Amino acid sequence: MKDGNPQPLVLRQDQGPVARLVLNSPGNFNALSLAMIDALEAELDEIAANDDIRVVILAASGKAFSAGHDLREMQAAREDGDGGRAAYEQLFSRCAAMMQKIPALPQPVIAEVQGIATAAGCQLVASCDMAVAAEGVRFGVNGVNIGLFCATPMVALSRAIPPRAAFEYLVTGEFMDASRARELGLINRIAPPEQLAAQTMALAEVIAAKLPAAVRLGKRAFHQQSRMGLGDAYAATGPVMCENLMRTDTAEGIQAFLEKRPPDWD
Amino acid sequence: MKDGNPQPLVLRQDQGPVARLVLNSPGNFNALSLAMIDALEAELDEIAANDDIRVVILAASGKAFSAGHDLREMQAAREDGDGGRAAYEQLFSRCAAMMQKIPALPQPVIAEVQGIATAAGCQLVASCDMAVAAEGVRFGVNGVNIGLFCATPMVALSRAIPPRAAFEYLVTGEFMDASRARELGLINRIAPPEQLAAQTMALAEVIAAKLPAAVRLGKRAFHQQSRMGLGDAYAATGPVMCENLMRTDTAEGIQAFLEKRPPDWD
Amino acid sequence: MKDGNPQPLVLRQDQGPVARLVLNSPGNFNALSLAMIDALEAELDEIAANDDIRVVILAASGKAFSAGHDLREMQAAREDGDGGRAAYEQLFSRCAAMMQKIPALPQPVIAEVQGIATAAGCQLVASCDMAVAAEGVRFGVNGVNIGLFCATPMVALSRAIPPRAAFEYLVTGEFMDASRARELGLINRIAPPEQLAAQTMALAEVIAAKLPAAVRLGKRAFHQQSRMGLGDAYAATGPVMCENLMRTDTAEGIQAFLEKRPPDWD
Repeated sequence: MKDGNPQPLVLRQDQGPVARLVLNSPGNFNALSLAMIDALEAELDEIAANDDIRVVILAASGKAFSAGHDLREMQAAREDGDGGRAAYEQLFSRCAAMMQKIPALPQPVIAEVQGIATAAGCQLVASCDMAVAAEGVRFGVNGVNIGLFCATPMVALSRAIPPRAAFEYLVTGEFMDASRARELGLINRIAPPEQLAAQTMALAEVIAAKLPAAVRLGKRAFHQQSRMGLGDAYAATGPVMCENLMRTDTAEGIQAFLEKRPPDWD
Repeated sequence: MKDGNPQPLVLRQDQGPVARLVLNSPGNFNALSLAMIDALEAELDEIAANDDIRVVILAASGKAFSAGHDLREMQAAREDGDGGRAAYEQLFSRCAAMMQKIPALPQPVIAEVQGIATAAGCQLVASCDMAVAAEGVRFGVNGVNIGLFCATPMVALSRAIPPRAAFEYLVTGEFMDASRARELGLINRIAPPEQLAAQTMALAEVIAAKLPAAVRLGKRAFHQQSRMGLGDAYAATGPVMCENLMRTDTAEGIQAFLEKRPPDWD
Repeated sequence: MKDGNPQPLVLRQDQGPVARLVLNSPGNFNALSLAMIDALEAELDEIAANDDIRVVILAASGKAFSAGHDLREMQAAREDGDGGRAAYEQLFSRCAAMMQKIPALPQPVIAEVQGIATAAGCQLVASCDMAVAAEGVRFGVNGVNIGLFCATPMVALSRAIPPRAAFEYLVTGEFMDASRARELGLINRIAPPEQLAAQTMALAEVIAAKLPAAVRLGKRAFHQQSRMGLGDAYAATGPVMCENLMRTDTAEGIQAFLEKRPPDWD
């Protein structure tokens, strides 16, 4: 809640085992204010502790997914005694902590993107494990256009797409369209705007139908091994395979496959 | 050999300086059983010590390149006193060792892929230095569909294609077609099915026609520097250039180029 | 200057805040001889110290961007008492130092590529922060064709494009066309040959119109964080955002945006 507004900044709309979070501040294009960051983090913490949730969709209300940080909030902080420094340090520290909770979440997180996703809004998309975007969506790390280089959004973006493409968008401030975003690897799928929510939910349900334990240990291992050398990565993931195989529900999954019948997982 | 079967699990069909290994267990879609892993590793060890071999093709017989580990073998291990744990540890440890022998091999290795390459079969493709696939080939890291997340195949795949695409295939269990596989960087070339073997051999022969010493030191340097920072990578490769240049056959190669004649390398 | 040649090896043609360096040895396809490397490094050092320059274009005269090192110079060094070893060590050491000055330069550097860019010429393109190529340009790391594996060009190339594609071009010596180069991430844009210079300058001017301090701290942060883990990268870039925000010209840029007017930055 904010300023007595009856609407929370983040809505949660679950559909079975899929938690759907909705950024709900369309009036300022879902600005990632400190309050929005806190609201999002609170929802993520709750989901992390909820074994019934298997997949998370991160969506947004209104015309834009998110236009990044709240510039009015930033400018207001200049009135502080220190010219805003402490407020800025807090903002970026808490934003980075929230962004890192997404790969650390036990469940896969899919961004559902409409309109534009710029600056920290683009960072949020790149921080999710996967993304589905509506045709016509435009991505940007365009803070440079107003004199503020997108240094923290760069962290997420430059780990998602090839370096020279990332550099181009960062220094030119130009938009990346959905087609180029998929070619470069930022997004996984493109949907017609009117089918965006349905297709994202369909993708989430594909994942939610898998053995939850396998998805969870898999996501954890994915991020754990991603920057290791080859030998270390195998040393880290071999035991994950063994742990997975020793499960009785995995034994059932394999046996069902061999017997050409659906697994009895419920 | 296995169980008195007159056919070895891996065939070797050399053509001049090109060694062509063929997975030869079509009845179970060339399952990467422990015996198959051992047979493959034995062939790789022999090739590593053979200076006459300049390039390796890794092909497979039957309808599929490989459908991954041998699920029946895995299920049988559950009868062991420890529920299979020791067998699984051995399987993944030996599989990882075999997979890492491919980039460590002195000669470039090209996967020649038909049908499907799934789970550890996809890992095998991604562990080769390059890959040629027939039109219509489907790749998958789809163990999640039977409750077994492809954690070790992920190691090879997520080093070959952008991270968010890798994540998608790992958690959805869906297939990647050859065209997307080339766009993402998993495979290098696509051939009509009836020309797969010929085009892969043609690629191998292009490489086999180069100065073998240059290809060998190049492959070694490629994998050695791949995860270093820029300064370290240059410090590692500068001496490789010098070593290469000091060779008399390289001197001849450069001189022949300057004189617009073929090098006298034989 | 070289051997009394009245033309310097590198021309500098500034246009406002854009420095345009032109490799000027078309007779040997702008070979990266030791003298050319020195000339280029001297220009980069001068630009690094010049706060009036906001963007650098690296172009070339004649039919080719650059065909790599000077093979005649290399062969001549074989007459040295040590068979050339000291000369080769110096060449690759100084070349690597020059290449690394490009990402270390305060200003973004854009390669403007015509004809061919091969071996160390391809390395030079890959070492720039971005690249624009004319339609029909061919890239190659094709030293293997003459017995000299492109080990140092590989350092830059394999950090710009997916690994298995890099490996293919290194061991086959084949050319990569401009379209594939853009798909893989080596180049950012393709221009008709007759518009190459104009479109590259237009891109440079887009960047030159940004707040220079934001571009400079952004470029530095880009390369600084590129190989860090996620937590370290956020720890490194959060303070960059704060430093950027504390600037009075950035305050003006944000305020102007909020007031829907152009910033007063001059």
